Amino acid sequence: MKLSSVGIEDIKFPVKIRQKKGGHQQTVAEVNLRVDMPRSSRDSCITIITTVLNKYQDDLSVTVFPQLLSEIKDELKAESAHMEMTFPYFIEKKAPVSGTASLMEYKCCFTGGIDRQHDLIISVWVPVTTLCPCSKEISECGAHNQRAEVNFNVRYQGFIWVEDLITLVESTASCEVFALLKRPDEKYVTERAFNNPMFVEDVVRRVAEQALTLPDISWFSVGVESFESIHKHSAYAFVDSTELR
Amino acid sequence: MKLSSVGIEDIKFPVKIRQKKGGHQQTVAEVNLRVDMPRSSRDSCITIITTVLNKYQDDLSVTVFPQLLSEIKDELKAESAHMEMTFPYFIEKKAPVSGTASLMEYKCCFTGGIDRQHDLIISVWVPVTTLCPCSKEISECGAHNQRAEVNFNVRYQGFIWVEDLITLVESTASCEVFALLKRPDEKYVTERAFNNPMFVEDVVRRVAEQALTLPDISWFSVGVESFESIHKHSAYAFVDSTELR
Amino acid sequence: MKLSSVGIEDIKFPVKIRQKKGGHQQTVAEVNLRVDMPRSSRDSCITIITTVLNKYQDDLSVTVFPQLLSEIKDELKAESAHMEMTFPYFIEKKAPVSGTASLMEYKCCFTGGIDRQHDLIISVWVPVTTLCPCSKEISECGAHNQRAEVNFNVRYQGFIWVEDLITLVESTASCEVFALLKRPDEKYVTERAFNNPMFVEDVVRRVAEQALTLPDISWFSVGVESFESIHKHSAYAFVDSTELR
Amino acid sequence: MKLSSVGIEDIKFPVKIRQKKGGHQQTVAEVNLRVDMPRSSRDSCITIITTVLNKYQDDLSVTVFPQLLSEIKDELKAESAHMEMTFPYFIEKKAPVSGTASLMEYKCCFTGGIDRQHDLIISVWVPVTTLCPCSKEISECGAHNQRAEVNFNVRYQGFIWVEDLITLVESTASCEVFALLKRPDEKYVTERAFNNPMFVEDVVRRVAEQALTLPDISWFSVGVESFESIHKHSAYAFVDSTELR
Repeated sequence: MKLSSVGIEDIKFPVKIRQKKGGHQQTVAEVNLRVDMPRSSRDSCITIITTVLNKYQDDLSVTVFPQLLSEIKDELKAESAHMEMTFPYFIEKKAPVSGTASLMEYKCCFTGGIDRQHDLIISVWVPVTTLCPCSKEISECGAHNQRAEVNFNVRYQGFIWVEDLITLVESTASCEVFALLKRPDEKYVTERAFNNPMFVEDVVRRVAEQALTLPDISWFSVGVESFESIHKHSAYAFVDSTELR
Repeated sequence: MKLSSVGIEDIKFPVKIRQKKGGHQQTVAEVNLRVDMPRSSRDSCITIITTVLNKYQDDLSVTVFPQLLSEIKDELKAESAHMEMTFPYFIEKKAPVSGTASLMEYKCCFTGGIDRQHDLIISVWVPVTTLCPCSKEISECGAHNQRAEVNFNVRYQGFIWVEDLITLVESTASCEVFALLKRPDEKYVTERAFNNPMFVEDVVRRVAEQALTLPDISWFSVGVESFESIHKHSAYAFVDSTELR
Repeated sequence: MKLSSVGIEDIKFPVKIRQKKGGHQQTVAEVNLRVDMPRSSRDSCITIITTVLNKYQDDLSVTVFPQLLSEIKDELKAESAHMEMTFPYFIEKKAPVSGTASLMEYKCCFTGGIDRQHDLIISVWVPVTTLCPCSKEISECGAHNQRAEVNFNVRYQGFIWVEDLITLVESTASCEVFALLKRPDEKYVTERAFNNPMFVEDVVRRVAEQALTLPDISWFSVGVESFESIHKHSAYAFVDSTELR
Repeated sequence: MKLSSVGIEDIKFPVKIRQKKGGHQQTVAEVNLRVDMPRSSRDSCITIITTVLNKYQDDLSVTVFPQLLSEIKDELKAESAHMEMTFPYFIEKKAPVSGTASLMEYKCCFTGGIDRQHDLIISVWVPVTTLCPCSKEISECGAHNQRAEVNFNVRYQGFIWVEDLITLVESTASCEVFALLKRPDEKYVTERAFNNPMFVEDVVRRVAEQALTLPDISWFSVGVESFESIHKHSAYAFVDSTELR
């Protein structure tokens, strides 16, 4: 029987990610890596994978993915190689009114594959606020709102910054989220969300509409989970671009 | 050197919990169990613990804790025994206006100990809504609100239902949370929260004030984590009754 | 734009699962449910989903999936409905030598979908022991071994018990795992594993070979994660039946 | 009523940790922070906490804890402040025979408190191998072994490197764990573990014995969880130094 893919899971590495603002950001990635290969010493398979990972640990980024994966594939004479690298990424944001700067953390993931050709999916998880249109419409005052998380996954022709994907998502919800807000900022985000009510599927739709305007995005999916403030469960919406064409 | 305590962790059992409304509720508990004992065959120690757990699996409840722990302590000639049993517990709630019934799930935990005497802590985790007083005060419309979780832990002289501890907590926040709400119910909870703004520490204070009115509570602690809708992080407040006296 | 699918996530329900040995087993399921539908009141969408879930809470099992999903699809005039139900399932196992009975817990999942036709995937996660062939071969004594978890997912024509899928998996590793072992049992499992060394890909291959002998399995995938005792990371292997044909 | 402590939870920051080998290591910390204070504007409380955290984000380490906590305490006129900082920490290890270098990741935590005086607990979680003495004794060949995790927490008078605490722990188990092993290394660790069988309580006892030889450790606790390869549950042992005196 053709050998199943083999690899390693749940291994952490310090990695340096190139930043849009310049320079690299050092963070910590959790890595899963698998290869498809003809039967052979699996002992050497795991050793080679770990050796190459150790070799790249000081400069592992989306731009070196093809190189790293090709190297593993070649050394193992594998038919294919597949790697996920998930990491927290920090971006300085300015509060909307006071301009107070603080760091926001975003979960990001690069998923690379290589067989005959290369494939790369860039994923970001972006916290936002959703405010319920129904609750606002039927209530004399207020409207329930909550933190929601947008998961945006794209295949991109060429290069795009995760910063740009995050910015795209933050523009689509009832309001974006910040690490530090002064009172005038809190007033702004409260009113902004109240005047901009959205269901999870509205956020999904707006992210999708934005994505469709970028011709270099060859595929995307969007999932939004809203941690409902009036329920213990979440509301969820999802779309895959292949269903839109 | 005196032997450290030994035991087992992360083992799941189906358990039956006696309900206030009558009868038992079958659920699934995750159990951690430890004993302090003079040096001896640890092999038999684990076997006896597991055997007793298996024996009680069909009727494990807060009322049989002393019996189960005593049995383990005696069989092992242990100086003490300690057990945690965490489980999801379901209570039917009626929506506030329509009266529509649905099941709410609450995380509960019984923590029992025995050395010379018995000790028992009952813990409940109750989801609620918090609405920010500051956001309401400074904004022309709306107020940020979110789901929060109240963790209430008590030592009780005699018997008390977890249902009663949950009811106590649900009365203290901006609004309680439901599994199923019709439109008139959603209008009610939205307005109720808006008219009842609270910081996490206000919820902590109100739970503590309620607990202090129950003379049979010999000790309690309250922690409230609010999953802020305008931040990625949580606001948290905590009090231990020993700090209040 | 076509509406994205909408639904609820992370909601727990008590469910009754039909057992091979007869009768039902009560356990607790975590449910995710999504529907694809033309634009409409999402408020009613969530309400209908939750209402139907509450209606079925006392007898939710793989056999009522088609009925439940059809009901949601019809009530919402949806194009499709999709539901995952993950739950711990308990099976009494007898120790291999002493015959001592104890309960083993297995994570199971039913994933049902309906659009024009029905689809159902049954998943089980089975803990096993893997003992490293390389370590045994090169060492003068002993061999490193560890707990591993096999995730087996199948599409089945007709009906199959999760018990049967679990039994299939437990026969394929270095040794199966038990909740309670007496000394003669511990001697047996130690020697059994030592005499039956396997890499994660050997376990994957054996599960796949077994699955291929069952004509009613129209599709399957197998993933094995081994929590290596000599590393902090896991070894992993995976196969999808579509790659075998 | 005296105000409960208030603060923030689950916020991530990039932090730089001073290394024993020289220089700083950049990693990512998850921070929880709480203060006890007289009633006052909680809005400013959260803002000040976040502001100070942002100020220190580029050089947060055990040595600046007292300064950071004092600053928060003073700015808030708080009675006390308490902070936990948990982070993955990487140390280069050489394989025991081949000397091949690879990075090991260890979970570490600094827990600082200040009221009238300062308090600091340093915690490390160290993966190790445990090999069962009973299994070895009763079996004709082999012995079950598995990954275990040692949690070692200390109060230290003066300064100690987390590297030194980790080294202390790694010397106490059946064998230490590595990220990358060549065949001769795998032979070594297999035989080393087989010739060095230990129960979880043996590991606890040896860590405690080592700790008692260090006069500057004013308090410690040790917990060891062994992910049994023959069971689905863990074996656990624990000791607190206060029980030893």
